[in-house]
Amino acid sequence: MDVSRRDLLRTAGALSALLASGIPIAAKAQAKQLVIDCHGHYTTEPQELNVFRQTQIAALKDPSVKPSAASPKIGDDQLRDSVQIQLKFQRERGTDLALFSPRASGMGHHIGTAETSADWSRVCNELIHRICTLLPDNFIGVGQLPQSPGVKPDNCIEELERCVKSYGFVGMNLNPDPSGGYWRDPPLTDRWWYPLYEKFVELDVPAMIHVSASINPNFNTLGGHYMAADTTAFMQLLTSDLFKDFPKLRMIIPHGGGAVPFHWGRYRGLAQDMKKPPLEELLLKNVYFDTCVYHQPGMELLFKVIPVDNILFASEMVGAIRGVDPRTDHYYDDTKRYIDALQLSEDDRRKVFETNARHVYRLDRNANFRRHI
Amino acid sequence: MDVSRRDLLRTAGALSALLASGIPIAAKAQAKQLVIDCHGHYTTEPQELNVFRQTQIAALKDPSVKPSAASPKIGDDQLRDSVQIQLKFQRERGTDLALFSPRASGMGHHIGTAETSADWSRVCNELIHRICTLLPDNFIGVGQLPQSPGVKPDNCIEELERCVKSYGFVGMNLNPDPSGGYWRDPPLTDRWWYPLYEKFVELDVPAMIHVSASINPNFNTLGGHYMAADTTAFMQLLTSDLFKDFPKLRMIIPHGGGAVPFHWGRYRGLAQDMKKPPLEELLLKNVYFDTCVYHQPGMELLFKVIPVDNILFASEMVGAIRGVDPRTDHYYDDTKRYIDALQLSEDDRRKVFETNARHVYRLDRNANFRRHI
Repeated sequence: MDVSRRDLLRTAGALSALLASGIPIAAKAQAKQLVIDCHGHYTTEPQELNVFRQTQIAALKDPSVKPSAASPKIGDDQLRDSVQIQLKFQRERGTDLALFSPRASGMGHHIGTAETSADWSRVCNELIHRICTLLPDNFIGVGQLPQSPGVKPDNCIEELERCVKSYGFVGMNLNPDPSGGYWRDPPLTDRWWYPLYEKFVELDVPAMIHVSASINPNFNTLGGHYMAADTTAFMQLLTSDLFKDFPKLRMIIPHGGGAVPFHWGRYRGLAQDMKKPPLEELLLKNVYFDTCVYHQPGMELLFKVIPVDNILFASEMVGAIRGVDPRTDHYYDDTKRYIDALQLSEDDRRKVFETNARHVYRLDRNANFRRHI
Repeated sequence: MDVSRRDLLRTAGALSALLASGIPIAAKAQAKQLVIDCHGHYTTEPQELNVFRQTQIAALKDPSVKPSAASPKIGDDQLRDSVQIQLKFQRERGTDLALFSPRASGMGHHIGTAETSADWSRVCNELIHRICTLLPDNFIGVGQLPQSPGVKPDNCIEELERCVKSYGFVGMNLNPDPSGGYWRDPPLTDRWWYPLYEKFVELDVPAMIHVSASINPNFNTLGGHYMAADTTAFMQLLTSDLFKDFPKLRMIIPHGGGAVPFHWGRYRGLAQDMKKPPLEELLLKNVYFDTCVYHQPGMELLFKVIPVDNILFASEMVGAIRGVDPRTDHYYDDTKRYIDALQLSEDDRRKVFETNARHVYRLDRNANFRRHI
């Protein structure tokens, strides 16, 4: 194709005008739709990290065994190797990049003191940062907070700020139950949490509401505690005025929102009985759901019930469920397939796979993300 | 129509032969399909009952205020009047009868001692029995157990036996968390519960797994604790061999199973990762779900995912959600409408509305039930 210099100049001028116009970038980049997985954990850590943690825990009883260094020695090649399985799944499933945070069940906020959590969070967050630096096309960081049961979450502000400002992390996981299944701290809507929320708002990053491992034998971590916590957190938000106090605070409820979409009628009815406004108005300007739902009928329900503007693509790969579904011969957690089967409109697909995450996590500020656009 | 005496005799003979044949009664009574609501609570109690309970609670601190009688004085007319709203809804919605138990949030097992719970359970169960006696066409009793946190559930055996043998109750509500939201007792699969299960099996009645009110500020009772507990209980069962030990034990998970049907893929995957047999084999000979799901898409999912043999019609009327859905102009908890809209086959309808409940609760043994057949 012959293109004259004048044509090129004209096109460049139009592009400049478009860029200056403030039209969202998504509208400009129609050609390629990104697929952003907003919920990935680093669940394939080198053994050195687990040894470090075990030593840290042993030192709680016997200070003489304290880890010899502030962080475990793990080389760049080890880090690269450790996430090859994620990269393979990204390629195979057609995911462009993942928002990547430390293993959720590994946060273990119930273990030790606030200092224990602070040390452990710094180590975990640093590894995430290094992976995002080594593989900038594939990962963007989300952090772990140094929460500790009974300790005011003000102690998390410093790490939140460090992760966002120094590492460029785009969000943090917030544990609504640092006690590990005994639910002893105040609900998420209590003023207990407000100083931390102020920092989230100031930094303009969202919180994914994600518990860690349960030490309560009543709650299996992956099938009991996670689902119960997602549901519990949503109901806490429903009964509160949190988003009147923090209209700009954004929260993601993972695992498709626990029981919430399945019981959307119950939640609409509960809000109505409490003389609250409709859920769309009460919560859906601030609360988002991910798509970690591991079968087709569940995914269908999610999209029937929750407005598409509030759904963010996610798989939690490599995560809770590692098997292949014999009914489909595909991985249970290959959630993109279920969404593809819904045959959404092009606009809705783009929202779920790309623009909702860009909006909620303010991804356009992130250098790794800008490589894709 | 003229019918000869010989025709009548012949018909009577055929009927006798049919009755003697052992063919299930459902197959004989094809003409009229019953609608059995397996989940109703007595939530419209006369004020006297609440005063009695408040006095009982006050007496825990000050024994001088102990209730003057073993039970509150409530007349038959008062009882009849108190359930007129249930009768009205039964007529309007086309429900033939309800399995009726004391208010679930009122069980309050966390309050006082095992003796407190024993006294309170006897009072509540007696009222249910009186209502079932006064209105035998409309109600069949299900009981409350005198559980108490930290107390071995062996203490519930006597009341279970009394309710079934003296009152003809067809099941009992079993609270998986008598601590009221702190989850301090062992999981349902622990041997802690086994003596009670032995009695359930001996009496051949099922347990509905139903928590009571939450005193943990993290859990809203109706929107947090109930849903979280349903999900938690199912996951406890999934990880255990309980039904190998009790192959005849039957449990109903209320509120559509909490998050379970929405996350059926996750639960199938978890069982598979744990090298367990498929859920159908592992749990579905013993575990049933009710239909307390308050919107059409949720009900559709339930029936898409859970085998129809494991679904029992229920509304929890008059219960958690009392409002009218402005989108449909019908009560949220008028669950029969959602099922009607599914256009199930005649066989499946009969299972969900009638025969599953007859099977799970062994209703044909109950005198009130036999009035309908």
